[in-house]
Amino acid sequence: MTWATIATWRMSYEGVQTASKMLQEGKSSGDAVEKLINQVEAYPYYKSVGYGGLPNEEGIVEMDAAFMDGDTLAQGAVGGIQNVKHAVSVARSLSQQHYNSFRVGAGATKYALLHGFEITNMLTERAKARWQKQLQEQQSRNLSAYNGHDTVGAITLDNNNSMAVATSTSGLFMKKAGRIGDSPLSGSGFYVDSEIGGAAATGLGEDIMKGCLSYEIVQKMGAGQSPQQACDQAVYSFVHKLKKRYGKAGEFSLIALNNKGEWGVATNVEFTFSIASEQQKPQILIAHPAQQQTTKIEPVTQDWLDAYEKRIKAPLE
Amino acid sequence: MTWATIATWRMSYEGVQTASKMLQEGKSSGDAVEKLINQVEAYPYYKSVGYGGLPNEEGIVEMDAAFMDGDTLAQGAVGGIQNVKHAVSVARSLSQQHYNSFRVGAGATKYALLHGFEITNMLTERAKARWQKQLQEQQSRNLSAYNGHDTVGAITLDNNNSMAVATSTSGLFMKKAGRIGDSPLSGSGFYVDSEIGGAAATGLGEDIMKGCLSYEIVQKMGAGQSPQQACDQAVYSFVHKLKKRYGKAGEFSLIALNNKGEWGVATNVEFTFSIASEQQKPQILIAHPAQQQTTKIEPVTQDWLDAYEKRIKAPLE
Repeated sequence: MTWATIATWRMSYEGVQTASKMLQEGKSSGDAVEKLINQVEAYPYYKSVGYGGLPNEEGIVEMDAAFMDGDTLAQGAVGGIQNVKHAVSVARSLSQQHYNSFRVGAGATKYALLHGFEITNMLTERAKARWQKQLQEQQSRNLSAYNGHDTVGAITLDNNNSMAVATSTSGLFMKKAGRIGDSPLSGSGFYVDSEIGGAAATGLGEDIMKGCLSYEIVQKMGAGQSPQQACDQAVYSFVHKLKKRYGKAGEFSLIALNNKGEWGVATNVEFTFSIASEQQKPQILIAHPAQQQTTKIEPVTQDWLDAYEKRIKAPLE
Repeated sequence: MTWATIATWRMSYEGVQTASKMLQEGKSSGDAVEKLINQVEAYPYYKSVGYGGLPNEEGIVEMDAAFMDGDTLAQGAVGGIQNVKHAVSVARSLSQQHYNSFRVGAGATKYALLHGFEITNMLTERAKARWQKQLQEQQSRNLSAYNGHDTVGAITLDNNNSMAVATSTSGLFMKKAGRIGDSPLSGSGFYVDSEIGGAAATGLGEDIMKGCLSYEIVQKMGAGQSPQQACDQAVYSFVHKLKKRYGKAGEFSLIALNNKGEWGVATNVEFTFSIASEQQKPQILIAHPAQQQTTKIEPVTQDWLDAYEKRIKAPLE
């Protein structure tokens, strides 16, 4: 019996600290993963998740989120939900329903209202200013939209050998109304089976779903591969396949954790992530794609962290 | 080089006839699968797809659909779209976009309006009457809702070795607003890779997505299994797993076609489907789960067909 957690990006670090305390105290993987994600959703300077997340092209913050219980395989998801402080908590609540467990658009928001979830205007002044700036720049310089699509995804293993996975995102900046990505989609954005392990994705959802990458990684772990082997094989072969078949591949990164507490990641861009386990204090690592379908992973430097902090809080010009 | 097609349920038969003519004439798998589904969408007596489809609990017909190109892996999908005659054609159009290719709710309908797709009130008098009757019965007798969740899904192989898959459904009868099922979800409701084959699902979406069954079947075919072996192994082991882990399993049926034109199906209920190939005139078959994780498949009887025709057109009491 051991516990562990892994989550995408630097932004998950404080949530990983919270989750690691909970797991250490014997809390469940489901409670820990929800609180981990909630913390990222609530922080206004993370511009791709929850409060402070960047809006769609109409200036509306639309969020996608999911939750999966690795013991029962129960899932809940929302797509294009609005005005909800904690989309992942709505998803987790839906996972307790056998029917109607994936709700989108106005119907998803209606569920949150009916069930008393915290409602707020998710568009911060800062996010609104970025949106207005982007609109102006696109008009004047024909800029490409769709930068910034960083989902928080996390996997947890608790002392009872139960696992959970959850995701939350405001999706592509400047997306079209009602666009959803991989984050709420079983097998693409997330998957977990407590008898094997779990995986979660971040990146261009439109491409991640072409390869069902989270399910693929869990299957490979089920066939005996380590999380790192499974991530490397699934991600780099799919990048190759997508370039050959579709002509290009967007940016994406996958994380995985098995039910022994071993983890792995693979990515086709610079990718930070956070981990903690019974043996390992919460830590931020940075990954890059390396040669021969492998991933180079090292501790993040203080310089990187300082630059990150400065960047996310920089005044908007 | 050969061509073939397989599609879910008796209702796909006329569409399979149309698609088989097109494939014989050298038309593409993408064109053939779209026309196949369009024909089912347009027929008012099929109460789970397109025009005449049963509404959600509020009386609104909300549709889910998807299209995937097996050559490029490009996908398009809509969830909870309203007032659109041919949801699958909207999905196919979206598959040509790299970004924003999965749209839900009002944003999906907006895309259809902007791109000139045929708009109509999808609620027929007959569907409205059934909804009103169901509302009354649920109030008076505490009936369970959620009967009837029959997706049309189809896979095509053309003479150029290209494959496509598509799905379309109005989803669970009496569903909650914004509920989406497996039909628009990559890997759950559909998946296809022209170098291997494709699969599609019908049944309780909430359970199908717990197992990513379409992707699982394509992976098994990729590992060398025949479509029938892949369907049997994926479906029956998942039914077993779901009962053990989740405590119950809804009804579902899967179809598969590989790139040699061989097909397979597996199901945990009585399940009709339609096939055609270079060697085989369009035909309706009926499948039942059999012993030891196998599927019993036989031609449908004239009695069955007569009873079906009578049932779908029976006057509502």
